[in-house]
Amino acid sequence: METTKFLLHESDMPRQWYNIMADFPRPPLPPLGPDGNPITPDMLAPVFPMNLIEQEVCTDRWVDIPEEVLNIYKMWRPVPLVRARGLEKVLGTPARIYYKNESVSPAGSHKPNTAVPQAYYNKIFGIKRITTETGAGQWGCALAFACTLMGLECKVYMVRISFDQKPFRRLMMETWGAQCLPSPSTETQAGRNMLQEFPDTPGSLGLAISEAIEDAVTDPTGKTRYSLGSVLNHVLMHQTIIGLEAKKQLVLAGEKKVDTVIGCVGGGSNFAGIAFPFVLDKMNGADIDIIPVEPTSCPTMTRAPFSYDHGDLAEMTPLLPMHSLGHKFMPPPIHAGGLRYHGVAPLISHCINLGLVSPRAYDQVDVYDAATTFARSEGIIPAPESGHAIAAAIDEARKAKEEGKERVILFNLSGHGLMDLRGYDLYFRGELVNYPLPEAEIAKSLHNMDKYPKAQA
Amino acid sequence: METTKFLLHESDMPRQWYNIMADFPRPPLPPLGPDGNPITPDMLAPVFPMNLIEQEVCTDRWVDIPEEVLNIYKMWRPVPLVRARGLEKVLGTPARIYYKNESVSPAGSHKPNTAVPQAYYNKIFGIKRITTETGAGQWGCALAFACTLMGLECKVYMVRISFDQKPFRRLMMETWGAQCLPSPSTETQAGRNMLQEFPDTPGSLGLAISEAIEDAVTDPTGKTRYSLGSVLNHVLMHQTIIGLEAKKQLVLAGEKKVDTVIGCVGGGSNFAGIAFPFVLDKMNGADIDIIPVEPTSCPTMTRAPFSYDHGDLAEMTPLLPMHSLGHKFMPPPIHAGGLRYHGVAPLISHCINLGLVSPRAYDQVDVYDAATTFARSEGIIPAPESGHAIAAAIDEARKAKEEGKERVILFNLSGHGLMDLRGYDLYFRGELVNYPLPEAEIAKSLHNMDKYPKAQA
Repeated sequence: METTKFLLHESDMPRQWYNIMADFPRPPLPPLGPDGNPITPDMLAPVFPMNLIEQEVCTDRWVDIPEEVLNIYKMWRPVPLVRARGLEKVLGTPARIYYKNESVSPAGSHKPNTAVPQAYYNKIFGIKRITTETGAGQWGCALAFACTLMGLECKVYMVRISFDQKPFRRLMMETWGAQCLPSPSTETQAGRNMLQEFPDTPGSLGLAISEAIEDAVTDPTGKTRYSLGSVLNHVLMHQTIIGLEAKKQLVLAGEKKVDTVIGCVGGGSNFAGIAFPFVLDKMNGADIDIIPVEPTSCPTMTRAPFSYDHGDLAEMTPLLPMHSLGHKFMPPPIHAGGLRYHGVAPLISHCINLGLVSPRAYDQVDVYDAATTFARSEGIIPAPESGHAIAAAIDEARKAKEEGKERVILFNLSGHGLMDLRGYDLYFRGELVNYPLPEAEIAKSLHNMDKYPKAQA
Repeated sequence: METTKFLLHESDMPRQWYNIMADFPRPPLPPLGPDGNPITPDMLAPVFPMNLIEQEVCTDRWVDIPEEVLNIYKMWRPVPLVRARGLEKVLGTPARIYYKNESVSPAGSHKPNTAVPQAYYNKIFGIKRITTETGAGQWGCALAFACTLMGLECKVYMVRISFDQKPFRRLMMETWGAQCLPSPSTETQAGRNMLQEFPDTPGSLGLAISEAIEDAVTDPTGKTRYSLGSVLNHVLMHQTIIGLEAKKQLVLAGEKKVDTVIGCVGGGSNFAGIAFPFVLDKMNGADIDIIPVEPTSCPTMTRAPFSYDHGDLAEMTPLLPMHSLGHKFMPPPIHAGGLRYHGVAPLISHCINLGLVSPRAYDQVDVYDAATTFARSEGIIPAPESGHAIAAAIDEARKAKEEGKERVILFNLSGHGLMDLRGYDLYFRGELVNYPLPEAEIAKSLHNMDKYPKAQA
């Protein structure tokens, strides 16, 4: 009998996260404050609990996962590593394709891997309430899920257009006891200002971030903090359990080495999760292609410069050293909402600059081609975000076929697509389109970036 | 560290289904044909492949699960047995509550447990195409999933009102390559007749069954068969892998005995799946409460007589010996669409008649109370159908608390609720209602049943 699923026993689940900060040949640039100087931990204290701020700047290679977090991880972890035999057969490839199935979490994606520890660290720091923003809704759902299990209140500012178009995501959050409201809201100054000026605005992720941060820092009890689902160092570190599990499971599968590691990139957390443990091997001399994949319509890694930029539209965050299309960039309305972010995590930007990873971009229609092929051969309907990783995996498997080479390809299935089926509908009807991005539009978006400090790659 | 999830190794997954037909102290009554005589296998041959018909009448206690089916089961099975510590804590109960998490299948419910073997047996019998009906959409999705993996065509007649109201279910089926069309359709005589008489009809499950059967039996190539997702003996048998796994996992959890086993009942397949292996123990003298749970608005087990009745509105099926509200009964529009069936499987009806199981009914609002309590304490959003089992489990756990007794309660979480969140929305807004069912309405529905042969319980 052919085994297709490689399970790790709970007792073999990793008990530490991997912190790539310990291993870079040279450290990444620091985030800068409004004065152009590196920010200090106390400047972040009104926004995040100090234990998470310490994790953000930590340089230990291994960080213990708290017991209470491990206990909740065990609700759905370790997640299966799956040999994609159905997909291999359809492609007729000599490559062996494996994927980590992060869609099995109760929230349907990898996001709970960081939502749970973030809720935990807030709780033990004495915080009672967490605010956040959400665009498509994956992150808001994951944080709502984590907060109900930790006994924390959760308030999610959801970009209004998504709030209106995706009532089911809001309902998931409410079922888990969170409050979810459309942004702009009347509950913050930032929201009220926007509503006064543009009463009909569809909202934006940047504004929702501003509202969530304002809500947290203005709570007079001091018991509210803000939480972010990607981009930051500690968030990416929490996700490394994906790659650490995968490494152990590849051994169970009898694989001595992996040739290619693939993940999709919005802010970068799921890619970092599967890839960083393999980037470590690469830094130690292993021959591995590591491919972060983005949409051609939001090409932060493949077409944007490396520079200092804000993480949000409203310029409330520190300046981060990253590949960025400019914080005013408005990505086209692709269905992979989780990949519509103007920048990419500083740690991944640093990997790009060091030549450790090789970014690639795909058009939307090609992504749905790949996602549908996967659904019909492997039986799991992928999130459109994950479809980007699948597209690259399929291309790599085809290349292996052309070259007649056995290759071992690993990708991350970051989530299922059950809450995001509209894109499939358009695709089946032949109405799904691509959004080519002219160079002039990128230049326009980068137009005002000159005022920020220069960042050397 | 407290363990909450009990996993079975793939190699310990049951390799046989349990067939309760082997163990009844007296056999159930046979299905009858239009002439009032027991039907013979060849009468079913145009509808089902002969290998499944043989399984339908089989009396062997254990039936081997084919290797190819086991391989696909392994995509998501064995599924976890979970100790519901979060729920126990909220209830403050001394009971130990366990649930089988069938929501982890790619289709989101227990239905693939029978969809996969049904597709398999059709395939090896030389069938190329399967037709079926679906109401809420769970079954249609499961069969679409199974057919794409087996390389079969799949055509699903979906009740028109659901087709219009639940586009996401249709999209899941299409993503898996199935054809899904609204019933009544213009593709069958039954559909055309209905459209001519009632062009605006919302459709019904009974009519959709008629269309799917007509489509199968009129295919001139003879390579099409029909598939049913519940009620029949072989379907219930395929689901027994749930209870067989649970038994092994309860041993891993250190439990020497289980006191209460609970599942929700529409046609009865998920209940039979978790319960029949324990009904066997009960027939052998074990002291176990086995509770099938239904909605008060569709009280087949708690208020309907045992009689011979058709399985469908259009009277195309044989007469089945079952507790039934009459095949013309139109259940109120509760959100647990999978429990809106006028009858209950003959094997479960027989268990009721033998006193082996103790049916119970819950109001819709109480079900959502229970489902929400579960979502917030265990982190999984249940399907409204599964909410019925949760309601009973919570009541049993509260009773254990009142009596100060340690009891071991096992229930089946038949599926997740991510595709059915509208009911939660109404519940949170206080707009969800119950549908009390007056005795007169039941009497009216049973009015014309006198013409059928009598069935003695």
